[in-house]
Amino acid sequence: MPFEFELIKKDTGSSARLGRMITAHGTVNTPVFMPVGTQGTVKSLTPEQIKSCGTQIILGNTYHLYLRPGHETIKKLGGLHKFMNWTDPILTDSGGFQVYSLGKLRKITADGVIFRSHIDGSKHFLTPQKAVEIQEALGSDIMMCLDECTPYPATLSETKKSLDLTVKWAKLCRAAKASTEQAIFGIVQGGTYLDLRKQAVEEIIPIGFDGYALGGVSVGEPKEIMYSIAEAITPLLPEDKPRYLMGVGTPADIVYGVSCGIDMFDCVIPTRCARHGLLFTNSEKIVIKNARFREDDGPIDETCDCYTCKNFSRAYLRHLYFAGEILAMVLNTIHNVHYYMRLLAQIRAALEENSFTEFKNTFLKKEGGI
Amino acid sequence: MPFEFELIKKDTGSSARLGRMITAHGTVNTPVFMPVGTQGTVKSLTPEQIKSCGTQIILGNTYHLYLRPGHETIKKLGGLHKFMNWTDPILTDSGGFQVYSLGKLRKITADGVIFRSHIDGSKHFLTPQKAVEIQEALGSDIMMCLDECTPYPATLSETKKSLDLTVKWAKLCRAAKASTEQAIFGIVQGGTYLDLRKQAVEEIIPIGFDGYALGGVSVGEPKEIMYSIAEAITPLLPEDKPRYLMGVGTPADIVYGVSCGIDMFDCVIPTRCARHGLLFTNSEKIVIKNARFREDDGPIDETCDCYTCKNFSRAYLRHLYFAGEILAMVLNTIHNVHYYMRLLAQIRAALEENSFTEFKNTFLKKEGGI
Repeated sequence: MPFEFELIKKDTGSSARLGRMITAHGTVNTPVFMPVGTQGTVKSLTPEQIKSCGTQIILGNTYHLYLRPGHETIKKLGGLHKFMNWTDPILTDSGGFQVYSLGKLRKITADGVIFRSHIDGSKHFLTPQKAVEIQEALGSDIMMCLDECTPYPATLSETKKSLDLTVKWAKLCRAAKASTEQAIFGIVQGGTYLDLRKQAVEEIIPIGFDGYALGGVSVGEPKEIMYSIAEAITPLLPEDKPRYLMGVGTPADIVYGVSCGIDMFDCVIPTRCARHGLLFTNSEKIVIKNARFREDDGPIDETCDCYTCKNFSRAYLRHLYFAGEILAMVLNTIHNVHYYMRLLAQIRAALEENSFTEFKNTFLKKEGGI
Repeated sequence: MPFEFELIKKDTGSSARLGRMITAHGTVNTPVFMPVGTQGTVKSLTPEQIKSCGTQIILGNTYHLYLRPGHETIKKLGGLHKFMNWTDPILTDSGGFQVYSLGKLRKITADGVIFRSHIDGSKHFLTPQKAVEIQEALGSDIMMCLDECTPYPATLSETKKSLDLTVKWAKLCRAAKASTEQAIFGIVQGGTYLDLRKQAVEEIIPIGFDGYALGGVSVGEPKEIMYSIAEAITPLLPEDKPRYLMGVGTPADIVYGVSCGIDMFDCVIPTRCARHGLLFTNSEKIVIKNARFREDDGPIDETCDCYTCKNFSRAYLRHLYFAGEILAMVLNTIHNVHYYMRLLAQIRAALEENSFTEFKNTFLKKEGGI
C-alpha cells in the first residue's frame, strides 16, 4: 500500500494539525514522537515493551545498520521489521547526520561522503543513491534523503553552498527511489538563515516528496533560532504532507513544534536520559539517584500508568541504578518513552477537543517556558 | 502459613524424588532450580519475564542486599517481595559465601565474620544471629544458616575445625529464628571428607531444620568429589525434608544431583553465561558471536518455545551481542533461564512417568557424561 497522509483537523488558535499517516506497516496518528532504535533496538526494550509505551513508529539509523550487521544481511533476513521483530512502522534516517558527526573521519565531496567506520576504520562512500539503496534494503516505511547537515555556526556563503549540495542530492535520492511501498521525505536545510530556508523550501518542494523535514536544527544553535525557524518555515511546507522536525527534542520543544505545525519528532532524550537515571514526570524532572528517594515507596510519577510506575517504587529504581543493574535501564526507559507517548497523546486529545492553545500555555508555563 | 514439604513420589530406579514445598508465597514443585537474583533482580529481567520462563522460586543474596540498599530499608518498604515486585517464593542465602569470597577483606572469629564492604570499605560483623535478623527483615520464604564454607583444598583438621564452627553457628541460627512464616535450612559441611560429612549430618539434623543443604561443594574441587558427596550424603538426610545442593550447577550436574535425591539447586550459570553470549540448546551449547550465525534466521533452539526463540533469530541475537546492546542480555537470559526451567520440568515429568533413569541416561550421554 503506498504511503498516504490525511490532514484531519487544523487548530484554530495555532498552526497545529491533527493527522494520520498510512504506511505499509500501519497507521500513525500525528503529531507523533518516534523513539530512536539506532542499532535495530530501542535500547534495552523488547518490541512488546516499546509498544506498551504507546509507541506507533520508531526510527532506525541507516549509518549503524549499514556498518553492522549490514543492509544486505538485513535484507536477506527479511528486512528490518522482521529482523528486530517490530511489526509497526519504521522511519530510517539517511545516515548523513551520523557520518557528519564523525568529524575528521569523513570528507564531503560533490557526489557523497567518504568516511571511515567508527567500528573498524574501514573506508566507505555514501552517495545519495547509496543512501536510498540501503534504506530500500532495510525496508523502512519512510526513508530520508541524504542531505548535508549544515553545522552551527556557518557563514552565509558556507550555508548557501551546503544547501545547494542538499538540493542536488535530494533530486538524486528522489530519482533513485524504486520502492513503491516506501515513502521518501525531503529535507529543508539552510542553517540559521531564514532566507536560505525559504529558498530550500522553494527548491525542495518541486522535487515532490511524500513528506518534508526541517533538518540542521538542534545542532548547537540557540533554542530561539530553532523556534524561529520552526515558526517561520513550517507553514511554508505543503499542507497535505507530513512535516518532521528532525532530532527534536525536549517536551517543551515538542509542544512548541506542534504549535508551529510540525507533525513528527524524534530524539534520543527520553531513552538516553533514562539510562542516566533522569526521569520525566508530570511535575518535574527527577534524578533517581537523589538521596531523597532512598526510602520512597511511591512511583516515579503518581499520575503515570506505565509498567514501571504501576509496579516499582522510586526506592527500588534508585537501588537498581546504584547497583548498576540492567533492569534499571529497562524500567527507566519504559517510563520515559511512555512519558513522551503520553505527552503526544495529550497533544492529540487537546487538538481533538479544540483546547490545544490552553494545553500549550499551561504546559510551557509548568516547564518554565520554552 | 508455616512451611511444609510433601514427598509425592520416590523413584524406583534411583534416589530421585518428586515433591512439593508449600511456602508463605506459594507452592514449589521439586526438583526445582532457583535463578539467582543477587541484588533484588534476576539480572536484566522483569518479574514477568522471570515468571514467563517457568520460574517458581528465586534466590536473593543477603550479603548484597544487607550492604545495599540495606535490610532495614527493604523491611520499611515492605520486604524483598514487595521491593522487587516478585510475588512468588524467595530463598535467601546467609551472606556467608559472599563474605568468604572477599578473601583478605574478611576475618573469621568464633562469633562470626568481620568483613569490609566491597562497595565502600566500611566494616561489618556478620554473626549467626545477625544473618537470621537480616533474612527475617528481607522476609524471604526460606532462610539459610550462616555457615563456614570450607575452602578447597583443606586439610582434615582444618575441615574438622571449620565444621565444628558451622555446627555451633547452626544452633545459634536456629535459636535466633523468630519468624513463623519463614523456614530455615541447615547446611551440611565437611569438605571433601565423607566421614566429616556424615558427622555433619549427625550433628545438624538434631537441631531440627525445615530442610537441609549440602554446602561447600562446587568450590573448586573435582567434579567427581562433588558427585561422590551428593551420592553418599544425600540419602542420609531426612526423607521428609527438602534437600538443597548449593551453587550447583551445569545441566548434567542437576540431572545427576536429582538422581542422588536432591530437590533444590541454584547457580549463576544460566544467567551469567547468557550475558556472555553462551546459550544452552537441546543439542549443544552455542556461542552466539560465532560467524556461522551471521545470516542464520533460525531460533537459538528449534525445540524451544521461550519468548526469545519464538520471536528472534540467531542472526539478530548475534548482531545485538556485537553491538553491545542491553537487549542482547535480556533475550539471552530469558532463553537460558527458560532452558533450565524446561530441563527441571522434563525431570519432574520423567519422575511422574517412571522414566527418570532413561531420561538421565539419555541426557548424560548427550552431554558427554557428567
